[in-house]
Amino acid sequence: MRSGGIIASAAQPLQDPDQLIDSVETFIFDCDGVIWKGDKLIDGVPETLDMLRSKGKRLVFVTNNSTKSRKQYGKKFETLGLNVNEEEIFASSFAAAAYLKSINFPRDKKVYVIGEDGILKELELAGFQYLGGPEDGGKKIELKPGFLMEHDKDVGAVVVGFDRYFNYYKVQYGTLCIRENPGCLFIATNRDAVTHLTDAQEWAGGGSMVGALLGSTQREPLVVGKPSTFMMDYLADKFGITKSQICMVGDRLDTDILFGQNGGCKTLLVLSGVTSLPMLQNPNNSIQPDFYTNKISDFLSLKAATV
Amino acid sequence: MRSGGIIASAAQPLQDPDQLIDSVETFIFDCDGVIWKGDKLIDGVPETLDMLRSKGKRLVFVTNNSTKSRKQYGKKFETLGLNVNEEEIFASSFAAAAYLKSINFPRDKKVYVIGEDGILKELELAGFQYLGGPEDGGKKIELKPGFLMEHDKDVGAVVVGFDRYFNYYKVQYGTLCIRENPGCLFIATNRDAVTHLTDAQEWAGGGSMVGALLGSTQREPLVVGKPSTFMMDYLADKFGITKSQICMVGDRLDTDILFGQNGGCKTLLVLSGVTSLPMLQNPNNSIQPDFYTNKISDFLSLKAATV
Repeated sequence: MRSGGIIASAAQPLQDPDQLIDSVETFIFDCDGVIWKGDKLIDGVPETLDMLRSKGKRLVFVTNNSTKSRKQYGKKFETLGLNVNEEEIFASSFAAAAYLKSINFPRDKKVYVIGEDGILKELELAGFQYLGGPEDGGKKIELKPGFLMEHDKDVGAVVVGFDRYFNYYKVQYGTLCIRENPGCLFIATNRDAVTHLTDAQEWAGGGSMVGALLGSTQREPLVVGKPSTFMMDYLADKFGITKSQICMVGDRLDTDILFGQNGGCKTLLVLSGVTSLPMLQNPNNSIQPDFYTNKISDFLSLKAATV
Repeated sequence: MRSGGIIASAAQPLQDPDQLIDSVETFIFDCDGVIWKGDKLIDGVPETLDMLRSKGKRLVFVTNNSTKSRKQYGKKFETLGLNVNEEEIFASSFAAAAYLKSINFPRDKKVYVIGEDGILKELELAGFQYLGGPEDGGKKIELKPGFLMEHDKDVGAVVVGFDRYFNYYKVQYGTLCIRENPGCLFIATNRDAVTHLTDAQEWAGGGSMVGALLGSTQREPLVVGKPSTFMMDYLADKFGITKSQICMVGDRLDTDILFGQNGGCKTLLVLSGVTSLPMLQNPNNSIQPDFYTNKISDFLSLKAATV
């Protein structure tokens, strides 16, 4: 099956799930397109997770969606009937706060947030001061001659994530902090082009909010979500996992699979989300996972078929 | 004075304006920072323009600001006491419409606008159908399960310019058109990082709106404003001017001077706007105009000094 391409060997269809399962100790799952689609659980997920847990595998759930906190995601898992602990959930909202902790971001500095409630919740839990977020959603600027937008000189980081209440006030506030506050960080939860706010269509993602700030500041952001390896490094460090003992399972090549490969993990693409087999096999696609399969419950059905 | 650098020879201070004036037939002036600052005329501008006209020079005024139409700019010149004809004004709002005309954009197709009134006015004058603009400024999305934003399948171009009423609705609408309507164009009036909405501070510019769409579509825009040469080519073609017979006068290196150089024109940087002498002479700056001077009225004062 391997094509011997220069950039990457072609992905193989998953034929022997047990071999893969036995070769790793941790599975990191992307959520949307792997565990659920919008508000619907994907077929066979509970049984598959139960089977992996019964084999002693560590399960971790990673999502670039920053609109919810870990706690809020915990409720979503519960509502869908999945038994997942908050500690197993790594959303990019949490990653932003964890990153600031990891660099000992000063407690007397503040964080300006362009994003939704999840980021605020995680910053609060981590003990950071913040401003912005949803409460700036209705703010407008008044452009009379000589008008100046004041901004807080104590803002030491601007965190940008998906924000359906995105507006010019926020762009200008964040831009002023990044351009005028010495050393101010520009942190992106993710740069996803599209996201799945509803299951009816693709929606402009966090990449658009980040792109706006990039356009006005001409500064590249530091990304804490996939495909940056920050969360992978954090997980490996926190749980003491060797990265080659991790299998990253996701539905997107340019975030999930790249994230796994950047981290030195095994990778499995599932076709239950945004990537189709023709997209994977398109000659223009240079990102090849180790394996691909239709959905994670193939772990059970393929196993049954070989017995 | 020339440093013999590999990338560009260092700019020379303007010492003999008559020599420059005699060597060209057309002056293209950037407006903000050259003719005015915010709502204030820069010293000596009327007399300088009168002198150039009396010598038979063609004067053209070019601005990346797309919030006004040519007609609206004409009123601004008039209010400031300058005698400038609408036909001499080239704003990026006009450039967007002129570009669509130049490619024979189909009259049965529509243009979706993320931007302000100037773009709508120019599209209307050019006879194009459009939607969006200020009227989408108050629109919100309602994210109930299964919700789908409908978009007009007849949109064949999305024009993006500075928009103080920028919101997520517009980002998603423009993204859907660019991603889903076959052949839909993505046109940017400009990608300026900052703009001067008021003279009290720098404001996030058209680059932020364009950056947002770039982030969600992962498509590069076609830019019609500076430093793209579209307007220069249009001017040269319309008036039958040889480009080496043009002197571009501006206050920004990365838009005005680059625009002049991209077009093969002579270039003069004035220090009456955003660029200071230390910025020009910074070793990291690779954009060197032919000449620099404090302000355009040096055309008169330097001349007087040499008499």
